[in-house]
Amino acid sequence: MSYAKQKLKEEKVFKDPVHRYVHVRDAVIWDLIGTKEFQRLRRIRQLGTTYFTFHGAEHSRFNHSLGVYEIVRRIVDDVFRGRPEWNSDERLLSLCAALLHDVGHGPFSHSFEKVFGLDHEIYTERIVLGDTEIHRVLLKVGADFPEKVAAVINKTYKNKLVVSLISSQIDADRMDYLQRDAYFTGVSYGHFDMERILRVIRPREEQAVFKQSGMHAVEDYIMSRYQMYWQVYFHPVTRSAEVLLSKTLHRAKVLYEEGYTFAHHPVHFHSLFKGNCTLSDYLKLDESVVMYYFQVWQDEEDAILRDLCSRFMDRNLFKYVEFDPAEEKQKYAELEELFRKAGIDPDYYLVHDSSSDLPYDFYRPGIESERQPIYLLMKNETLQELSRRSEIVDAISGKRRTDHKLYFPVDVLRDESSNRTLKRKIRNILEIYRK
Amino acid sequence: MSYAKQKLKEEKVFKDPVHRYVHVRDAVIWDLIGTKEFQRLRRIRQLGTTYFTFHGAEHSRFNHSLGVYEIVRRIVDDVFRGRPEWNSDERLLSLCAALLHDVGHGPFSHSFEKVFGLDHEIYTERIVLGDTEIHRVLLKVGADFPEKVAAVINKTYKNKLVVSLISSQIDADRMDYLQRDAYFTGVSYGHFDMERILRVIRPREEQAVFKQSGMHAVEDYIMSRYQMYWQVYFHPVTRSAEVLLSKTLHRAKVLYEEGYTFAHHPVHFHSLFKGNCTLSDYLKLDESVVMYYFQVWQDEEDAILRDLCSRFMDRNLFKYVEFDPAEEKQKYAELEELFRKAGIDPDYYLVHDSSSDLPYDFYRPGIESERQPIYLLMKNETLQELSRRSEIVDAISGKRRTDHKLYFPVDVLRDESSNRTLKRKIRNILEIYRK
Amino acid sequence: MSYAKQKLKEEKVFKDPVHRYVHVRDAVIWDLIGTKEFQRLRRIRQLGTTYFTFHGAEHSRFNHSLGVYEIVRRIVDDVFRGRPEWNSDERLLSLCAALLHDVGHGPFSHSFEKVFGLDHEIYTERIVLGDTEIHRVLLKVGADFPEKVAAVINKTYKNKLVVSLISSQIDADRMDYLQRDAYFTGVSYGHFDMERILRVIRPREEQAVFKQSGMHAVEDYIMSRYQMYWQVYFHPVTRSAEVLLSKTLHRAKVLYEEGYTFAHHPVHFHSLFKGNCTLSDYLKLDESVVMYYFQVWQDEEDAILRDLCSRFMDRNLFKYVEFDPAEEKQKYAELEELFRKAGIDPDYYLVHDSSSDLPYDFYRPGIESERQPIYLLMKNETLQELSRRSEIVDAISGKRRTDHKLYFPVDVLRDESSNRTLKRKIRNILEIYRK
Amino acid sequence: MSYAKQKLKEEKVFKDPVHRYVHVRDAVIWDLIGTKEFQRLRRIRQLGTTYFTFHGAEHSRFNHSLGVYEIVRRIVDDVFRGRPEWNSDERLLSLCAALLHDVGHGPFSHSFEKVFGLDHEIYTERIVLGDTEIHRVLLKVGADFPEKVAAVINKTYKNKLVVSLISSQIDADRMDYLQRDAYFTGVSYGHFDMERILRVIRPREEQAVFKQSGMHAVEDYIMSRYQMYWQVYFHPVTRSAEVLLSKTLHRAKVLYEEGYTFAHHPVHFHSLFKGNCTLSDYLKLDESVVMYYFQVWQDEEDAILRDLCSRFMDRNLFKYVEFDPAEEKQKYAELEELFRKAGIDPDYYLVHDSSSDLPYDFYRPGIESERQPIYLLMKNETLQELSRRSEIVDAISGKRRTDHKLYFPVDVLRDESSNRTLKRKIRNILEIYRK
Repeated sequence: MSYAKQKLKEEKVFKDPVHRYVHVRDAVIWDLIGTKEFQRLRRIRQLGTTYFTFHGAEHSRFNHSLGVYEIVRRIVDDVFRGRPEWNSDERLLSLCAALLHDVGHGPFSHSFEKVFGLDHEIYTERIVLGDTEIHRVLLKVGADFPEKVAAVINKTYKNKLVVSLISSQIDADRMDYLQRDAYFTGVSYGHFDMERILRVIRPREEQAVFKQSGMHAVEDYIMSRYQMYWQVYFHPVTRSAEVLLSKTLHRAKVLYEEGYTFAHHPVHFHSLFKGNCTLSDYLKLDESVVMYYFQVWQDEEDAILRDLCSRFMDRNLFKYVEFDPAEEKQKYAELEELFRKAGIDPDYYLVHDSSSDLPYDFYRPGIESERQPIYLLMKNETLQELSRRSEIVDAISGKRRTDHKLYFPVDVLRDESSNRTLKRKIRNILEIYRK
Repeated sequence: MSYAKQKLKEEKVFKDPVHRYVHVRDAVIWDLIGTKEFQRLRRIRQLGTTYFTFHGAEHSRFNHSLGVYEIVRRIVDDVFRGRPEWNSDERLLSLCAALLHDVGHGPFSHSFEKVFGLDHEIYTERIVLGDTEIHRVLLKVGADFPEKVAAVINKTYKNKLVVSLISSQIDADRMDYLQRDAYFTGVSYGHFDMERILRVIRPREEQAVFKQSGMHAVEDYIMSRYQMYWQVYFHPVTRSAEVLLSKTLHRAKVLYEEGYTFAHHPVHFHSLFKGNCTLSDYLKLDESVVMYYFQVWQDEEDAILRDLCSRFMDRNLFKYVEFDPAEEKQKYAELEELFRKAGIDPDYYLVHDSSSDLPYDFYRPGIESERQPIYLLMKNETLQELSRRSEIVDAISGKRRTDHKLYFPVDVLRDESSNRTLKRKIRNILEIYRK
Repeated sequence: MSYAKQKLKEEKVFKDPVHRYVHVRDAVIWDLIGTKEFQRLRRIRQLGTTYFTFHGAEHSRFNHSLGVYEIVRRIVDDVFRGRPEWNSDERLLSLCAALLHDVGHGPFSHSFEKVFGLDHEIYTERIVLGDTEIHRVLLKVGADFPEKVAAVINKTYKNKLVVSLISSQIDADRMDYLQRDAYFTGVSYGHFDMERILRVIRPREEQAVFKQSGMHAVEDYIMSRYQMYWQVYFHPVTRSAEVLLSKTLHRAKVLYEEGYTFAHHPVHFHSLFKGNCTLSDYLKLDESVVMYYFQVWQDEEDAILRDLCSRFMDRNLFKYVEFDPAEEKQKYAELEELFRKAGIDPDYYLVHDSSSDLPYDFYRPGIESERQPIYLLMKNETLQELSRRSEIVDAISGKRRTDHKLYFPVDVLRDESSNRTLKRKIRNILEIYRK
Repeated sequence: MSYAKQKLKEEKVFKDPVHRYVHVRDAVIWDLIGTKEFQRLRRIRQLGTTYFTFHGAEHSRFNHSLGVYEIVRRIVDDVFRGRPEWNSDERLLSLCAALLHDVGHGPFSHSFEKVFGLDHEIYTERIVLGDTEIHRVLLKVGADFPEKVAAVINKTYKNKLVVSLISSQIDADRMDYLQRDAYFTGVSYGHFDMERILRVIRPREEQAVFKQSGMHAVEDYIMSRYQMYWQVYFHPVTRSAEVLLSKTLHRAKVLYEEGYTFAHHPVHFHSLFKGNCTLSDYLKLDESVVMYYFQVWQDEEDAILRDLCSRFMDRNLFKYVEFDPAEEKQKYAELEELFRKAGIDPDYYLVHDSSSDLPYDFYRPGIESERQPIYLLMKNETLQELSRRSEIVDAISGKRRTDHKLYFPVDVLRDESSNRTLKRKIRNILEIYRK
């Protein structure tokens, strides 16, 4: 039998707290899960530094990847199977793309990508197409199979229906992460009736659509997303940890570029610093390695690197105030000046962060978007864009919201053993009055 | 106001998936949570290598420690408060001991303790009494307060009621971990009605007891424990990962002792290898550091270390068969011999593991035990030991169960590119027939 | 000790699937629960005919009343207690009003009130103030206590904060029923984070308000309400059962007024039919009694009453089509005519129902409303109306939505044994094509 | 297409709180659900008087019957389908038997059967085979189909595998009711991992068996049963309500037999009193009808009937003490005598109840039983009886437990307005000291 059709002698299951069980029958899927590149996802947290805010959020991308696979598996095996609009030849491709869609993520992706100009999507492609165990498994399916998997993941695949299963306004990726992140953080916002959505999803030429009778479940999903973004993903404390992380990486890079001699040389970071990180270098990076360096850098001579690392290790985060960049430019400049005078480098210790820096792609049909709008399948078989039928979705769609904050180390500003007057001035401006 | 009585201006809460919220009002508790030694628990998983079996089990000891604190807080603040048998002066002590009871755990405790002869309880004591941030916080409460906290944790404190809250057959420690581990693994076995148990718990001189009307909830807790031990904690796949981990540490130690020159020198392990690990050394060890070394040791020259590390990183675990050490001594010797002939070192690749090596302390009154039996408080105010009233508990108490398995790398045994005949012989003995 | 302060020797608890436990310490509350008028609520379903749509929705008003009490108890005992804005003398009053707020409901309230011109709020007042066991319990608390309880329930009590706990846009009544109805129907829409809301609720002079930090939990509650209204409370099948019920009661009344001789005389309905239903008559009515009559009326001589009762007993409901009363007046008239010609009385078998007949009071600040808007308590202690801060709530507030449907017995229209041509015409107009 | 194979144009679903959705594709099943005899189950509670103890337990047998059907549907469609041991011709029969297995239950079955000597299993058979809508639907499938359905339900069907799905120690009936009753009461005891059990269930010639790997899930199910029996089904307060109900029915029967003239004549009870209850009479009985009579009998002249009915309506239950029938015969006789002297008829007001009167069929292999033992399917394809492999099940199997209680109206005994001395004596014997 061809490898593509090969089934395991007995179905394997993974116990999963979100989907109860993840089911694997295909030898290809089983083999992919066993590759070293996929196992590496166990060492990369799904939500980066969110665990500093929600202590339960320690789950890895390995978890999530299995979950996305399981949702796509249920869609294609339980719902789409046998429907004329669904080409069953795309089944295995859909499953593989679902499983591997995040395989190029590195440690603390958000900060790393920002500081080092990386793009996890490019590394996903390299892993799928390059000299990896994953590539070799995919190649056994067919000579062009790796390219097809990469195309689905980077959304260039010709069958847009397959693409839409993992990249659309309502796809398996998001359905898994909303529920999973809600489960592990313990918040109640991420719940929506996925069972209902899976009952009403239907294949169409360009994308998956949803029977009108399930509109309210889709609305509920949209609201869950909205709440999760503002309650969890953009939580100001998480962003404070991201700020600290970025500044730490930034400091290490600057020191390296300045020729600073590290007591503990950052071998794993060299090619990152130089901007020529190979696939092999990249695959050696994971959150254990990063945390290891942060651990040892606490003993570096450079005071800023040392301080930032210790803060990260010990969760001694920056505090924040609301900030309006349009109105408060002058105030910011003044603060910068005062920080400098007080011997506190504002490049590292006075940070403006806005949450629209973060990947916010709340539902907005019509706006130039990589993500397709959601269509309802009406009783008369026509399609209608969701916001035309749903008052709630219409009310909130297209509304971009940005939140600006200013982050700083309040402990330093309160320490009056030096620069007492300057620090008081700063505290006055920032309205930090009492402990 | 004294530090011991100092309350936060506003109650702080941690969102917790198991208890919904963890509530903190006491400045002492808040300060303890902020110490570097406590934050370090975020880098040590609650269930060691269990995440290789149940992928959701990636939660840290930080999580669990907050949970134990919260349960004790509810007991002393909501249930015991105002009852004559409860001395409210012990409140803060109980809370601190609950929070800190696991603070001395190191990375992958079980294997590390076994291979390096460590004892996390001793390190807990050292952290509480030594030169640490935790010690300094406790000292502010009172000169003898650190000693009292240590005494509660190591069960020598004179007020046995306080001790029983965190160390008895049914204590806050276990009530938290059973529920928490069930939640994160996703298994359904760890559920019991803690709310009911907290309603019927009562303070008595020697220990906490349980009103007779709650007996069935206590029975259910006992059954949950039983199931969690055999379904989760002693799962043969988890034990396989532990075997691999122990053998890796063991190999590194042997190499160090033999004077092997590491390409990547294990600075963080030196004092462990030499058996003189100081508190400061110990606190630098966490699971990121260990994983970092396993990562880099994949490039060591020593083939065994290299192989074991790669297996651990890529979850390429040993397989197992049932094994009866009493009956099958001869068979084991034969296998050892064959392994050696086939060039597979049996010291690392043929491992007998039994689960009663693991901390199995299933309910058994009367047997010499560090844990007190459970007493029911009858309507006439007398106490009765649980198994005298509960048929189910009586039926299972005192029954020690041991499970023996033999672990080995099945991929090596199947690789017929060398020692084909020997490997076939081995496979025949181990009854490994088909893929 | 005064009766108002009297505590039970030991706290009593009710196991509750929504709140886990309902706790009772006050003798007054315990005694009220034991009265015959309160126990009667066990015989009246919370959601009337909704169980024909969602078979789990068989729970009674007894359930819900305990739940509302429990929420108010948690608010006043756990959150408000000790705060200067809260007058603890109002505690017992709040609890009693919460427990009794629905005590005047009769069987299938919605239809009964419509057909017989009743008002459950008036009967609640009569029960509290009249010659009842409940009245006698309240009187033991104080001579004016029954009047105070009635005043809180009918919203005339001077302390508006107390009123707001059970009658506002976000009160204990709704928080209980949304969760409870979601639980028993099994839908996922009614979930919101009540624990969070209870943490941020604060007493103010005119009403309970919510700390700004809990805004998202309040938003989520508003969205849950929206979904529950359209998914559950206004479900077209439930409305079909209500239509049938109303028409049955209507038919019985018409027959009575026409002097029809019932084979089974409706003794329990006499005063209802005559419009002079005394408190004593009212208290004898419950859903068992109504169902009993429907049972025996299946053998009445009148064909319409017989048919309607059988339909209700056997859940042989009317089907429905969308209907636009503004555009389709002519069509309706035509249908009426055709029904009459075909011998199907349109007064009973062609029913226009619109869901804004139903008590829809979705959040709409500013509009003349008995319910107060929701205020957020900002960090600077000022109050802001919710929709000014929440984009989502702003987007949906004030939007009344009405849904019109036309109900009819499709089985009769399909039965071609008589009036074949007429029925085909009717089916054509109603677009009933295939089975 | 034959009716047996006929599918609905579109799958119908029922929202179910326990199984999320109940799925119906077969026209036969859809038609059966729509019959009047099946809809009648909505008017009969699943747990009789348990709602007096657990107020959430108001769910009907309609609920449960759908649930049993859904579990069997999942077994035969998802697990058994395609396996050689499963004859797919038995599919529809299995589904129908599952759906209808309880259709013969009457109101408050337990008490009615005891007092009137009925047997719901006989009525189930009569409904399936008699002149009913259900019979007519089944007949359309095949001339012998009704008989086959009846045979499966009464366990005489030749294919024991089919029988075992709804009648064995671990069948769909029990799996549904344990979970459902736990859900509606809100207790935590009824949880077990049904998903796991459904994954390991396998068809064998004589019965369904369970793969060894699922043994712990089966153990957990057994423990859940044990807990549910003692915590919920045999709860002493529920038994008190049953005692009251039985005595009320008993009184009405005695009065009827004595020629008493009822103010409200019990037409619906005549044939029950006379012992010749026809199918048609039986089908008119439901809990609404019974409650209606209890309502109106509160105004009867007979003081005992009046009192018992009022107690039932107002939940004014009897209290209880432990009772040892072997040791305390003398005491019972003495109490009887004293009751009589005090004018309290002991036939109605001093009731000995033991819970082994109730249908207790806790797991006990080997003992003469209508239920088959549970077999594990070992890896080598042999079968082993569960208690031979499971220590826990072995420990508790075969242990019959009986609980005896004495019930009486404590309010009457405390009322000292008459027979003061006698009542004191009685209270002394019963050890009723304080309120």
